[in-house]
Amino acid sequence: MNPNHSELYEANTDARNRSLSIRSGKSNGNVSSPTHRKGFSFASLRGSIQPELSRRLYRLIKSTNNLISAHEAAGKERDTIARELSEWGEQTQDEAVSDISDKVGVILSELGAQEESYAHNLDDARGVLKTIRNTEKSVQPSRDNKGKIADDIQKIKLKEPQSTRLVILEQELVRAEAENLVAEAQLTNITRKKLKEAYDAEFAAVIERAEKQIILAKHGQRLLALLDDSPITPGDARRVYEQGSAARQVLNDAEDDLKSWEMNRGHVFVGNEAADLGTGSGISQGVCLGVLESCP
Amino acid sequence: MNPNHSELYEANTDARNRSLSIRSGKSNGNVSSPTHRKGFSFASLRGSIQPELSRRLYRLIKSTNNLISAHEAAGKERDTIARELSEWGEQTQDEAVSDISDKVGVILSELGAQEESYAHNLDDARGVLKTIRNTEKSVQPSRDNKGKIADDIQKIKLKEPQSTRLVILEQELVRAEAENLVAEAQLTNITRKKLKEAYDAEFAAVIERAEKQIILAKHGQRLLALLDDSPITPGDARRVYEQGSAARQVLNDAEDDLKSWEMNRGHVFVGNEAADLGTGSGISQGVCLGVLESCP
Repeated sequence: MNPNHSELYEANTDARNRSLSIRSGKSNGNVSSPTHRKGFSFASLRGSIQPELSRRLYRLIKSTNNLISAHEAAGKERDTIARELSEWGEQTQDEAVSDISDKVGVILSELGAQEESYAHNLDDARGVLKTIRNTEKSVQPSRDNKGKIADDIQKIKLKEPQSTRLVILEQELVRAEAENLVAEAQLTNITRKKLKEAYDAEFAAVIERAEKQIILAKHGQRLLALLDDSPITPGDARRVYEQGSAARQVLNDAEDDLKSWEMNRGHVFVGNEAADLGTGSGISQGVCLGVLESCP
Repeated sequence: MNPNHSELYEANTDARNRSLSIRSGKSNGNVSSPTHRKGFSFASLRGSIQPELSRRLYRLIKSTNNLISAHEAAGKERDTIARELSEWGEQTQDEAVSDISDKVGVILSELGAQEESYAHNLDDARGVLKTIRNTEKSVQPSRDNKGKIADDIQKIKLKEPQSTRLVILEQELVRAEAENLVAEAQLTNITRKKLKEAYDAEFAAVIERAEKQIILAKHGQRLLALLDDSPITPGDARRVYEQGSAARQVLNDAEDDLKSWEMNRGHVFVGNEAADLGTGSGISQGVCLGVLESCP
């Protein structure tokens, strides 16, 4: 939990104000925010090291790569767990446990596949951030050049105020400023467009994984409900397991629901903005459509 | 993607049958399943090494620990990314980018907190599996003892058929069998009960993370919608950023929705079985309730 946001659930005013910025300990233009918290801050670090234009984004892109690796690892581990659960269930020599654990394994394995697919989608979003970083990189020389010419002019003005080079340099400065004006416009245009694009894609990936995993988990719970866990007394035999076909049907339902989700993808994500929230159609459709078709 | 289940979406019959079991290449009691696939299989391994009763579950519990670590790492990385995004945004000196990236950072940080909370819930479920493993461990000596006495009886019957020890051993065997009968009943009772409990908890954790992250991601998309990304021409200034209070409101809405989710938790999860699926109430309530209150 982030120390600044762990209290997001708390009702008190302090917590609410604290959760309004990720930046700690400094004003960020929200003058109405009454709490300027002390505590750990990157401000001092930022002050002492003046970073190259693209350095921060470079770091962010690198961290995103770690995030992707973590979700890939989680997906692979889910798959391992799925097999191990199935193998364990078989070893119990209890037909019911064997069948249910095998089929819960299928669900877990698919949860893992969704986790890996999520990692893949995050990677696509990360690619979009690289466009901003590359533009930042290409704008840096333009800024540097403009600054350097201005510096040169200042130096010469002090040393040789009558130098003919001054005229040339001042012409160069005008050209450099024009060139930089274009570069800065390109930078702000790319930055805003791609920032929206990258995080819209990330949030869409979060929603996709979530909706699909909800489908899988709910069917997983249906599978577990098929396992009779009423206790037996020593010497009594378990009733014969008769839920095999019902369990198979649950997996078929899960498959159908995921297919329905894919078919409705275009529809559900037409407008992934505020309007989407009010109706709640995005989620309930994704889950219910398939289920209503396939569940008795 | 698991090679056996990557085709879960495919419509052909093969893929459907393939997805009905996590075990590859062997019949598992579902005689109606027509495809007995070749391919990689753990059967040979299982045949050659006769594992101690609790060994498989021990491995499963260990793998689950790796899964938990992966999600913890993902949660922490999200938090790092949140800060880096906010810091980058501030450095752009674009007030709109600065504010939106800071607040998207808050959402990302909370997504990370949910990921860590998910890891915590998985750990609780893992604890339940340990109960089965411990029972397996404790039943092993009972099985061994019964087997050993039966072996001893066989040996003595061959060597000294008239030995008076035979009577004693046969009495011991009856006692050992009675003791084992109780142990095996305990084992099946614990196994079924705790298997359901553990994976019900896991699936509930999947659903909780998913529903909360959907809330956060949708509000994240609302934040991005506040960023004007219409291109400017060189030399033009950006319009003054006036979305600060709207952006703050989005975070307040997100907070309110998460609170509503918590308040409805008991209600939503009363019956986490098949019935839950048909209504779809679990999800749509979790997301819509708060939004309808707080969104204009």
